Amino acid sequence: MGPGDDCAVVASSPGPLCVTTDAVVEGIHFRRADGRLEDVGHKALAVNLSDLAAMGARPRWFLCALAAPSLTLGEARALGRGMAALARRFSAALVGGNVSRARELSLTLTAAGTPAGGKPLLRSGGSVGDWLYVSGTLGGARLGLRSLRAKGRGRPVPRAVRRQRRPEPRVALGVLSAPYASAAIDVSDGLLQDLGRLLSASGVGAQLDAARIPVDPDVRLAFARPAGALRFALVGGEDYELLLAVPAGRARAFERACARAGEAVTAIGRLVPGAGLRLLDARGRPLQRLAGGFDHFRTVKR
Amino acid sequence: MGPGDDCAVVASSPGPLCVTTDAVVEGIHFRRADGRLEDVGHKALAVNLSDLAAMGARPRWFLCALAAPSLTLGEARALGRGMAALARRFSAALVGGNVSRARELSLTLTAAGTPAGGKPLLRSGGSVGDWLYVSGTLGGARLGLRSLRAKGRGRPVPRAVRRQRRPEPRVALGVLSAPYASAAIDVSDGLLQDLGRLLSASGVGAQLDAARIPVDPDVRLAFARPAGALRFALVGGEDYELLLAVPAGRARAFERACARAGEAVTAIGRLVPGAGLRLLDARGRPLQRLAGGFDHFRTVKR
Repeated sequence: MGPGDDCAVVASSPGPLCVTTDAVVEGIHFRRADGRLEDVGHKALAVNLSDLAAMGARPRWFLCALAAPSLTLGEARALGRGMAALARRFSAALVGGNVSRARELSLTLTAAGTPAGGKPLLRSGGSVGDWLYVSGTLGGARLGLRSLRAKGRGRPVPRAVRRQRRPEPRVALGVLSAPYASAAIDVSDGLLQDLGRLLSASGVGAQLDAARIPVDPDVRLAFARPAGALRFALVGGEDYELLLAVPAGRARAFERACARAGEAVTAIGRLVPGAGLRLLDARGRPLQRLAGGFDHFRTVKR
Repeated sequence: MGPGDDCAVVASSPGPLCVTTDAVVEGIHFRRADGRLEDVGHKALAVNLSDLAAMGARPRWFLCALAAPSLTLGEARALGRGMAALARRFSAALVGGNVSRARELSLTLTAAGTPAGGKPLLRSGGSVGDWLYVSGTLGGARLGLRSLRAKGRGRPVPRAVRRQRRPEPRVALGVLSAPYASAAIDVSDGLLQDLGRLLSASGVGAQLDAARIPVDPDVRLAFARPAGALRFALVGGEDYELLLAVPAGRARAFERACARAGEAVTAIGRLVPGAGLRLLDARGRPLQRLAGGFDHFRTVKR
């Protein structure tokens, strides 16, 4: 039963429920001038669905708490359209919400889903020897943000701007990965920072092959020096790709399943004993330590 | 499994789940100067638990999305203490959340519970002939707000101020009512406005006995004319009492169950055929039409 009562009522489902809440706030996560309200609605839902994807969970329902100084019906509809298109694709039902006045526009969504494999993919499941995979490409969203902030200066990068405005949650990949992966996290704050979280939770270290990091092609083009492009890919933020640990014995089968489903994943390294992260260049030599993860506009993600 | 992963993981429960999301926003629902941050944390959770109570649901878990310009650890802890005390009393587990930067402090909570009777109490279940009950007393929270805004002018009303700052969600009454009531709603925007919602949803009208409305004693004292006190009780807002419709055949048993449990409820009228609301004075004559419900600081509750 959807909106219209004191609560929404949702049917129970067998097995556990994964629930997450994430906000997008005007002036922090988006600027009204940067895009259309459809994009804001899309992004608010996408960041929540990305959290579900990282648990290997199928989206089921979500609630939307909207806060705004004022909003025309047309603006509210635009937000709704951005959410609805994404919700339909992933069969997520908007079951309720709240509207409140506030000084700035924000959308705080809560999404729930059921783990495709019966139990969720955790950050803590990784073991020494597991392969590390990342989906898609990295750094594009950060390039898109830079392009938006450059106000017409520099070469336009419409694909990167689109990645920034309309991130694509890797829901199908999350579900597909559930039987293969030992651990997962979504790359929202930059690969290094989010990998660090997976390593801490799993109590292992990692060795990454820098040459195998799937840098976004526009990011490669935007930098004269490859190190600049690599840095965007490692600490960029807002990519909403999935980082997965897969035990070596299941890696081939996982890659075949991804190929069949048309899901792009790249093996970028392995989990190793100890703590911390070593980044190796093409000849296997440790690279200079890179700066820590992007602080995501100082937003702390729990 | 609590915070620390991409999602919280909660065990499934038999039967449906009631879910609600509600925000408290600085400058709209509270002012920092009006009280301690403990009160803000308490209120943020209380308004969500009140929605669960109105469905006859037992609280199970909640998520807390916090947005703030900056917050010291001490301030965050104060918010947490206010929530924790209430959460413990009603066995609601904080399973996850989010922290984001924003220009003003706000807490957007999402709470879930399971209907005590197996199925939830809806607004739409009322039938002609049902008795209408309201819990506790009405108008105190509005008097508390007026007292806070009066800045020392007028007689201090500490009990009313406390009702404004620390509303008490009627969780036990909601659970107790599940086997008896046909419909329920919580009185967050004023009795008239919330009763109007129940009537619309149930497709019936109501007749209220003005003399039986349980006006808060401090509100009675604050007004020279009884009509002023009655108006606060009818349209005051933020009382977070429960309004319940109970079929006549179960009314006696319901009242006995409330008396045994120490839950104060008052029969204030009955559901009648047709639409709309008639308010009768002590001699059964229709009272002058009162102004519509309090608009809750212009916050629209869905």
